[in-house]
Amino acid sequence: MLVEAANRLNIKTLVLDSAANPASQVSGHHTKDDHIIGSFQDPVLIAELAKKCNVLTVEIEHVDTKGLDAALEQNLVDQIHPTPQTIRTIQDKYAQKLHLIKHNIPVADSKDVSSAADIDRAVSEFGVGYPVMLKSKTLAYDGRGNRVIKSASEIAQAITDLGGGPENKGPELYVEKWIPFSRELAVMVARSVSGNVVSYPCVETVQKDNVCHIVVAPAQIDGLVREKARRVAENAVTSFDGAGIFGVEMFLLLDDTIILNEIAPRPHNSGHYTIEACHTSQYENHLRAILDMPLGNPEMKVAASVMINLLGSGSTLEDMESSVLGPSRAAFSVPGASIHLYGKESCRKGRKMGHITLTANSMPEAAAGTRTILEYNGLIDTATVSALTPAPVVGIIMGSDSDLPTLKAAANILQEFGVPFELTIVSAHRTPKRMVQYAETAAARGLKVIIAAAGGAAHLPGMVAALTALPVIGVPVALKQLDGVDSLYSICQMPRGVPVATVAINNSTNAALLAIRILGSTVPQYLEKIEIYAKNSEAEVLGKVKTLESIGWKDY
Amino acid sequence: MLVEAANRLNIKTLVLDSAANPASQVSGHHTKDDHIIGSFQDPVLIAELAKKCNVLTVEIEHVDTKGLDAALEQNLVDQIHPTPQTIRTIQDKYAQKLHLIKHNIPVADSKDVSSAADIDRAVSEFGVGYPVMLKSKTLAYDGRGNRVIKSASEIAQAITDLGGGPENKGPELYVEKWIPFSRELAVMVARSVSGNVVSYPCVETVQKDNVCHIVVAPAQIDGLVREKARRVAENAVTSFDGAGIFGVEMFLLLDDTIILNEIAPRPHNSGHYTIEACHTSQYENHLRAILDMPLGNPEMKVAASVMINLLGSGSTLEDMESSVLGPSRAAFSVPGASIHLYGKESCRKGRKMGHITLTANSMPEAAAGTRTILEYNGLIDTATVSALTPAPVVGIIMGSDSDLPTLKAAANILQEFGVPFELTIVSAHRTPKRMVQYAETAAARGLKVIIAAAGGAAHLPGMVAALTALPVIGVPVALKQLDGVDSLYSICQMPRGVPVATVAINNSTNAALLAIRILGSTVPQYLEKIEIYAKNSEAEVLGKVKTLESIGWKDY
Repeated sequence: MLVEAANRLNIKTLVLDSAANPASQVSGHHTKDDHIIGSFQDPVLIAELAKKCNVLTVEIEHVDTKGLDAALEQNLVDQIHPTPQTIRTIQDKYAQKLHLIKHNIPVADSKDVSSAADIDRAVSEFGVGYPVMLKSKTLAYDGRGNRVIKSASEIAQAITDLGGGPENKGPELYVEKWIPFSRELAVMVARSVSGNVVSYPCVETVQKDNVCHIVVAPAQIDGLVREKARRVAENAVTSFDGAGIFGVEMFLLLDDTIILNEIAPRPHNSGHYTIEACHTSQYENHLRAILDMPLGNPEMKVAASVMINLLGSGSTLEDMESSVLGPSRAAFSVPGASIHLYGKESCRKGRKMGHITLTANSMPEAAAGTRTILEYNGLIDTATVSALTPAPVVGIIMGSDSDLPTLKAAANILQEFGVPFELTIVSAHRTPKRMVQYAETAAARGLKVIIAAAGGAAHLPGMVAALTALPVIGVPVALKQLDGVDSLYSICQMPRGVPVATVAINNSTNAALLAIRILGSTVPQYLEKIEIYAKNSEAEVLGKVKTLESIGWKDY
Repeated sequence: MLVEAANRLNIKTLVLDSAANPASQVSGHHTKDDHIIGSFQDPVLIAELAKKCNVLTVEIEHVDTKGLDAALEQNLVDQIHPTPQTIRTIQDKYAQKLHLIKHNIPVADSKDVSSAADIDRAVSEFGVGYPVMLKSKTLAYDGRGNRVIKSASEIAQAITDLGGGPENKGPELYVEKWIPFSRELAVMVARSVSGNVVSYPCVETVQKDNVCHIVVAPAQIDGLVREKARRVAENAVTSFDGAGIFGVEMFLLLDDTIILNEIAPRPHNSGHYTIEACHTSQYENHLRAILDMPLGNPEMKVAASVMINLLGSGSTLEDMESSVLGPSRAAFSVPGASIHLYGKESCRKGRKMGHITLTANSMPEAAAGTRTILEYNGLIDTATVSALTPAPVVGIIMGSDSDLPTLKAAANILQEFGVPFELTIVSAHRTPKRMVQYAETAAARGLKVIIAAAGGAAHLPGMVAALTALPVIGVPVALKQLDGVDSLYSICQMPRGVPVATVAINNSTNAALLAIRILGSTVPQYLEKIEIYAKNSEAEVLGKVKTLESIGWKDY
C-alpha cells in the first residue's frame, strides 16, 4: 500500500524483502530484478539496497538497525527515516517504555525481570496483585512475546512460554502492571523531516486473540477524549527522533485516563482506513514526511469508517473461503465497502490476507454494513458491539425532570429514526456552570444538534445557543399560567446574532423531526426517512377520508 | 489506474501496449515479461493476449475489433467486454450517432458527407447556417479529427486538414449541426454482465483546446438537470451490448435541453475524480461490471470534488516544471488535494502527464483550492470560473417583495459567510402552485436549507415544510397590526409531524445564522466562522464596557 502511494506520486521505490513480497510486485518504476530479495535483517542486503537509494524507510520495525547505522556511516544513502536509533528504542519495548517515562508520557508501570523471584517482587511493588503481563522486550508482535500471569503458580510456565528468559539464555523479559482498560484506542501521527506534525483522528481498535480485528473511525467515545488521545500520541511521537508516520496504541480506562501501550514506527493496521476515509492516507503522509514535503490533510472526508481485517483461519481452500473470500463476497453487496486482498502467496491461520474498509455518511450506517460482513463468519463479540455502538449526535436537555414527559416524544422519534442521542437535565438557573460546560463542549464532544426544553422564563435554549456554534432547537414548555406563551416568547425572541430554532409549544415531536431534517443535510438516508414519515402521515389521513366516506359523518 | 484497482481485488491483469506503458509496470501478479509489448491494433498480439486471459477489456477504443472478433470465434478467450461490435459502433462516430438516433437518444443533427458540395448542402438542410463542425468518422480524439467551419470559404481547407476526405482517399467525414451549448456535462455509467446498471453523479467538464482541462463534481447546476443527464446517459449506454464502464459526454443548452455528444466505451477522464470522491471508483466498477460482480456504490462520499488535468506544455524540463511539477507542488499545500503522476516516459505538448483531485466539504472550499492550483500557471478562463461557481445550498423565499427589506440582512450574512444562496418570491396564497413546485423540488435541485419569511396569516414556512424533507426556517414578519405576533404564532405553532424552525420576529439575521449552523454539521469551516462571529460580538460588547468605564455613564 506504501508502494501504491509512491507510484501515484512518481516516487521510485525499491524493496528489500523475501521473494514473494507483495510490495515489489506493484512497484511502478522497476523490474522485479531491481528489487533485493532476502531478509531485512541482513546488513549486507541493507547495504546493497542503500547504495541504490536516496532515502531508506521501514514498513516493519524488526530490521537490522546496525545495518542501517552502517549504511549512514558509509554514506551509502542520504537519509534514513525514522532514524536507526528511534527504531532501536522502539524495537526494545522496555527501552521504549523508559524513553516514554522520561518524556512524561503516561504508560503502565513496568519492571525489568530476569527470574521468577523478580516477577513475584514486581507484583508486590505494583501493589494490586495478579494478573500481570509478562513480556518479551524484543520481537513481540500481534500477541507473540506476551503472556498473562494470573497467579504466582503460572510464573514458571509463562517464562518457559516466552523462551526461558535471560536465566536460560532466552530473550530479556519485563512485567507490566495489569491495565483494566475499557477500550483500546489508536492514533496515527506523521512528522516531516522539517518537524511539521499532523495526527489522524483517534480510532478504536478491537483485538481478537491479540490481533487487530476491526478499527472504528472515529472512536465512538467523547470527542474530548479523542482529542486528548491525539495529544498523547503527538507528544509521544515528537519525543523520538526522525521523520515518518507512527502508529500509537493506547488504553482508555473507565475514568477516561489514557495510558500509552506501544508505538510502531511505520504505517500501521489501525491506519488502513485512511486510504478511503481520509483526505490523505497514512501511506502518502509517510512519504511526504520522509521526503520533507508539506503534510497532507489527515482529517476524515466521511462521517464514519470501519476497517475489518481478513485473517486467515487456516491453510486449506475452505479456510480461504470462510475467512477471506466469503467475507469479501459479502462486502461486494455492502454499499461503501472497499476490498483489499494482498495477494499473499498462501493463507494460514492468523495471517493478514487483506482487509475491508467501509465508508458511510453516519456511524449507524457503517455499523450496519460491518455487521452484515461480520455475520458471515459470526465474528461479533461484546467488544465489537461496544465499539460499533454509535456515540450520540443529538443532545436532548431539559431544565427539570418535570419536562421529561414533554420530551419523551422526541426521544421516541429519534430512536425510531435510528439517530443516536443522549438525554439529560441541564438547568440554566440551578446548574448554570453545568450549562456553560455542557454547551461549550457539545460540538467537541461530537454532538451535531441540541434540543433544549424550558418553560416560563425559559432561558436554557437561548443561553445554550449563546455558548455553542451548533444549531439549538428550543421547545417551549407550557406551565400552569400563560399557557406556554411566556416560554415561546422567551425562546424565540432572541437578539440578533444568536438564533434558537423554536418549535411549537410542548411539541417535542417536531423538535426531534427538525433535528433529523438538520442531520439530513449530511445523511441522505435521514431525509428519505422523513419523506417516508410524511407519506405515512398522508396515508393515515387518507385512510380517515375513506372511513368518513364509507360510514358518514354522523356515525364517524 | 485500472490495474491498481485490479491489484486490490487480487485480479490478475495482463497488458497489451507499447513497452513504456505505465499499466504493466504496476501489475501486481506478473513480471514484465508476461505482458505483451506492441500495438493493440495488431490482431496477432491480440490473439496472443487472449490466449493468456479469461476476459479481455479495453482502456482505449482504438483497438483492432476484427482481432477481438477472431479471438472469440477461435475460443481463445471466454468473454470480451464491451463486445467488439459495441466498440466498433462507437469507434465510428457517425455509426455511433445513427445508433443513438435509432434508440431515441437526443443527439445533434449530422450528415454523412464526401465532398465540399455535400457539406454546403447539409448546412442548408440544418437551416441555421454556419458555423458547422466537420468531423472524421474514426480516430477522432481530444479534438483531433474535428474542424469548425465558419463559412463556405473554409470548407476546402477543413477537408484538407482532416486528411482530404473520401474523394482523396482520406478518412470518411460527416458534418454536425453547431450546438450553442452553455456547459459540457459528463456521466459515467457502469453495466454488469448481468445487466445491472449504476451511474455516477453528473459532472461538468471544462475543455481547453478540445482537451479536458477540469472536471467539477457534481456539476454546479440544478440537481434535476443533473438527474436528467444521468437518465440520458443510462439510456444511451443500455442501448449498446456488453458490460463495462462507459463515459457519456453531453451538451447542456441554455434552455436545459441535453444533447448527447459522444460515448467512450471505457474508463474516462471525466471519471478520474471517482477514485477519491466516490465510494467505488470507475475503475473498480469497470472490473466488477465485466466480471459480473455486484456493482459498487457510485455516489460521492464528499460534498464536492474538482479534478485538474496536468497537461504537458512541451518537452523541455521547463515545460515539465511549469505545466506538471509546479502545479503539483502547489497542490501539496492545498488540503484535500491528491496528486497522480502517471510516470510517462516523456513530457510533450498536450500530453496528459497526471492529474490532481481535490476533495472538500463544500464547493466553495473545492473552488478555492482549485484556484490556488490553477493560478500557478494562469489557466483560469470564464468557462472555468462558471463551472467553479457554487450552486445555491440555501433558498431564501418570501411571500411578497415587501418582505425584501426584512430579508436583506439574511442575504448579507450568507454572502459574508461565503454560503451560496438563491433569493426569490414564492407566495403561498397568490402562487400556490409555484410554492408546491418550489418546495417539492428543493432537495433534488440541491438546496440544503430553506429560509421562508411571511407575515400575518404567514402560511408560507409551514406549507413549504409540509412539502419538503429539508429543514425550513421561518421568519415571522411584523405587519401593521398585532406587531408580528400573528405571524409568529402561525409559523411556530405547527402541528405534530411538520416542524418549522422559527426565529424571532423580523430577525432574518438569525435565520441566516441558523442556516449556517445547520450547514455546519457538514462543513466544519462554517462552525468555525460562527465561533469567530460570536467572538467578534463579544469583543464589541467588551469594547463598549471599556468605553463606558473610561468616559462614565453620564457622558456615554
